[in-house]
Amino acid sequence: MKRSAADERVLGAAAEIGRRIGSGKVIDDPDLLVPYGADESGLPASLPAAAIRAVDAADVAATLAVAADRGVPVTPRGRGTGKSGGAIPARGGIVLLTERMDRIVEIDREERLAIVEPGIVLQTFQEAVEAEGLFYPPDPASLDSCALGGNVAENAGGPRAFKYGVTREYVLGLDVALMGGATTFAGRRTRKGVAGYDVVAALVGSEGTLGVFTRVVVRLRVRPAATQTLLATFGDEVAAGEAVRDLLGSGLVPSVIEILDRHCLEVIRRAGHNPIPGEPGAALLVELDGRRPERVEADAEEAGEILGRRATEVLVASEPGRRRSLWAARRELSTLLGKAHAGKLSDDVAVPCKSIPAVLRRFAELGRRRGVLVSCYGHAGDGNLHANVLWDDPGLDVAGRAALDDLLGVVLEVGGTISGEHGIGMAKREALRREQSPELLALQRRLKSAFDPSGLLNPGKVIPE
Amino acid sequence: MKRSAADERVLGAAAEIGRRIGSGKVIDDPDLLVPYGADESGLPASLPAAAIRAVDAADVAATLAVAADRGVPVTPRGRGTGKSGGAIPARGGIVLLTERMDRIVEIDREERLAIVEPGIVLQTFQEAVEAEGLFYPPDPASLDSCALGGNVAENAGGPRAFKYGVTREYVLGLDVALMGGATTFAGRRTRKGVAGYDVVAALVGSEGTLGVFTRVVVRLRVRPAATQTLLATFGDEVAAGEAVRDLLGSGLVPSVIEILDRHCLEVIRRAGHNPIPGEPGAALLVELDGRRPERVEADAEEAGEILGRRATEVLVASEPGRRRSLWAARRELSTLLGKAHAGKLSDDVAVPCKSIPAVLRRFAELGRRRGVLVSCYGHAGDGNLHANVLWDDPGLDVAGRAALDDLLGVVLEVGGTISGEHGIGMAKREALRREQSPELLALQRRLKSAFDPSGLLNPGKVIPE
Repeated sequence: MKRSAADERVLGAAAEIGRRIGSGKVIDDPDLLVPYGADESGLPASLPAAAIRAVDAADVAATLAVAADRGVPVTPRGRGTGKSGGAIPARGGIVLLTERMDRIVEIDREERLAIVEPGIVLQTFQEAVEAEGLFYPPDPASLDSCALGGNVAENAGGPRAFKYGVTREYVLGLDVALMGGATTFAGRRTRKGVAGYDVVAALVGSEGTLGVFTRVVVRLRVRPAATQTLLATFGDEVAAGEAVRDLLGSGLVPSVIEILDRHCLEVIRRAGHNPIPGEPGAALLVELDGRRPERVEADAEEAGEILGRRATEVLVASEPGRRRSLWAARRELSTLLGKAHAGKLSDDVAVPCKSIPAVLRRFAELGRRRGVLVSCYGHAGDGNLHANVLWDDPGLDVAGRAALDDLLGVVLEVGGTISGEHGIGMAKREALRREQSPELLALQRRLKSAFDPSGLLNPGKVIPE
Repeated sequence: MKRSAADERVLGAAAEIGRRIGSGKVIDDPDLLVPYGADESGLPASLPAAAIRAVDAADVAATLAVAADRGVPVTPRGRGTGKSGGAIPARGGIVLLTERMDRIVEIDREERLAIVEPGIVLQTFQEAVEAEGLFYPPDPASLDSCALGGNVAENAGGPRAFKYGVTREYVLGLDVALMGGATTFAGRRTRKGVAGYDVVAALVGSEGTLGVFTRVVVRLRVRPAATQTLLATFGDEVAAGEAVRDLLGSGLVPSVIEILDRHCLEVIRRAGHNPIPGEPGAALLVELDGRRPERVEADAEEAGEILGRRATEVLVASEPGRRRSLWAARRELSTLLGKAHAGKLSDDVAVPCKSIPAVLRRFAELGRRRGVLVSCYGHAGDGNLHANVLWDDPGLDVAGRAALDDLLGVVLEVGGTISGEHGIGMAKREALRREQSPELLALQRRLKSAFDPSGLLNPGKVIPE
C-alpha cells in the first residue's frame, strides 16, 4: 500500500514522539489502527495513520508538542463510546489514546473529592467511590465501558442528571495539556471558587477540541442509603408525558424519571426481556433515593399516587433482581432498536419539560407523514429525549433523513436544543447552524483558536466552518 | 477644568452614542459621575468621563459599537455592590449603566424558569419568584441592593450556595452584547444541553470583561415549604470548625452553615444587636429546609445533636423575628467590622472544609505575629471564609498588608483559592499569579481576546498583564 505524503508526515511525527516517550507507545500497523477509526456514533470510520498510547501526562504533552510542530492533527480518545463522532479522527493524523491512564490518584473521603486519570472506566470509578460510602452520580448508558475523561469531554449526563446534574457539576479542576504541549492545572480543589475565568467549564463538554485532560478533580456526594424504583405503565405516550408534568409540579425530586414509548417497550419485549408486564402504550421508570429509607419509601408512595392518576398500573420494583433487569433493558435500548430495524437515525434532543406531550405527538405525526416510525425514550425529567427515526425498507433512507430534519425543526420551534447530552461532534456540526446565531458560531471559532491556534486538535468537530 | 485629550475622545463617543440612542441617556456632568467611580471594594475611585444609562439591548449594543469604533474603554455596571473593584472604570472612559434594565420578562411557573433583565435588584426578583411558589437560591449579603446582572458577572454565591450552588448553577442562557456591538443569545432554555462550547459558563463570573448581559434565563426551584434555624455557640473557632466537619460527615445537607468567630460576635454585640446570648468564642448558624415541615424538624433535631457534642449551647431560632435579627447581624458584619477598626483589609478565600480548624488557627497566629487581628466569618460548609485583617493603630498599615499576604500563603498551601465568591477584579489581580500558572494566565488572556479583541471592555481587571 502506497502511503500519502500526509501519512508520511504523520508517521514521521509518530516516530519522533516514539523517540521521546518510547517507541513501544507508538502504533502504526494499519491493522491495529482499525479500532481507532470509529466510535459508537454509527458514522463512517476515518482511519488515523498512527496512534500513541499515553501512560502519563508527559506522554500527552510530548505528543501535542511534536504534532503541533509538524502540523499533524491529533484526535484524543477515551474509550470510544461517544455517540456523535467526537473520537473519530476526521482528518486522519494521530489518535491519542488515554485509556492506559486509568489510575485513581486519590479519594479524599472527608473532603468528598477524588483525583483520577481520564482513562478509568466510569463504573470502576463509581464502585471505588461507593466502597468509601461516597457517590459519583453521572450515569450515561455506557457506564460499564466509557472513560471518565470521555465523560468530561462530552459533559455526559444520564438518568440521574435530573436530580444530581451532569458531569459539569462535578468537575472542580483539570490537569490539561494544550496543542503545542503546554500544560497547566485549571480550576480548584475547593467546593467554591471564582479565581479567573471558568476555564474548566469551557473545557468540560468541549469534545476533545480544546485540550487533553490528564487528571480530573471531581467532587463527590455522600452515597444515598436507600433507593425505591417505580414502574408506571400508560395507555399512550401523551398520558406518560402528562404524568411527568404532574410529578415535576409536585415538588418531589426523584433521582430518575425515564420515559419509554410503546415501540421501545415492544422491542424490549420482543428481545425476550420481560421486565414490563402487559403491552402498555408507554412507561415511566421513576427512582427516588435518599439517606433515610422510611422517607424514600414515603416519597415513593407519594410519587406512586401521582403517577396512578394517569397510569394503567404502578408497580414498585425495589427487589434488586427486578431493578437490574429493568435497567439492563433500558440501557440496551439503543442497541435493540438498531438491531430491530434496517434503518435507524437517532437523535438526542432536549425540550422544555412542559412540551413533552406535544413534542411526542408531533414526532409521531411527522414520522407518519414521512412513512417512518419515530420512537422515543429518555430522561423525561430533564426534557432530554432520545428520538429514533426507524424504518425497515431501504428505499426509505431519504425519508428517514428528512424525518430527522423535521424532528429538529419541532425541537427548535418549542425552544429546545439539538443536543441534550451526546454532543455535536461530527454528527450535528451542520445542524448547529439551525440553533445558534452566526455571531455565536463566530465567537466559538475564536474561543477554539484561543485554546488551539493551530486548529490541529480534533479538527472537523463541533463548530461548523 | 481642562479636559484631557482622552476625555475629549470619550465625550465625543458619548455624544455619538447620544445621537443614536437619545441624548437623555448620556451623563457627562462630572458631579453626576461621582457615584460611578467606585464600588463596595474600598478601592480608590477612578472616575469615568461619561456614563450611558441603557434602557434596552439596543442601547447596550450601540454603546459597545461606538466605543469600540473610537477606542474608548467601557466598564459595565450593575448596582455597584461588588467587593473586588469589578465596576470601577480603571481606565476611565464610559460606564455603561444597566440598572434601568430591570424588568422581569417572564416567569414560567410550570417550567420553573425566568427571563429577566440584568438591572433588577436580586431581592425584588426573589420576591416575585417566591410569589409564584418558586425559589431562586443565590443570596449574597447585598441581596437587597445588588443587581442580578452583577451577580451573574461575579458568579455570586452566599450562604445558601452550600446546598443550592452558586449563580452559575442557575444561568441557562444569556442575551449578550460584545465589544463592537455584536449581539447573540448563548445557552438554552432547557434544563440540559450541550450544543457547542459552554459560552454561558465562560461569561458567568467573567466580571464584566467578556460581554454585557441584556437578558438572563435562570432556572428556578420549587420553594421549600419549611426552614429551621439553629444557632450553636462554641468555646473557640477550632471547636466550631470541628463541628462543621462532623456535620458534613453526617450526610445531612443543611441549606446554610455559617461560621462567626469570637471577634465577629463581639462586634455584633457591641453594635447593640444581641441575637446571640453570652460571650461565646465562636458560633455556627445552621439552617435546614425542605418540602415537609416534619422532616425539616427531624433534620434540625439531628443537626442539633451533632452540634451539641462540641457546642456550649444549641438554640433553635425558628421564630421569624429572631431569625431575621440573626441574619441582619450576619449580613451587616462586613460594615460593622469596618466601622469598629481604623484599618481593615478583607479577603474572600475558600479552603478544603476539612482544613477549616487548622486554617483558623494559623490565621490567628499570623495575625499575632504581625500585631494585627485576623477575624473570620463565612460559609463554612463550602470552606468559603471571609477573613478580615483588622488593626486600630494607623502605624500598622504595612503590617496589615503583610498579614493579608501571609494569609493568602496559608490558603494556597492547604490547596485553597484566593477567591471563593467575590471575584478577582482589581483587588486580587496581581495575587492571581500566586494561584495560577503562567500557562493558565496566558490562556485566559487569549480567552479574553476571543471575546474582546480590542481589550476595551472593562480593562485592567481579572487577568494580570
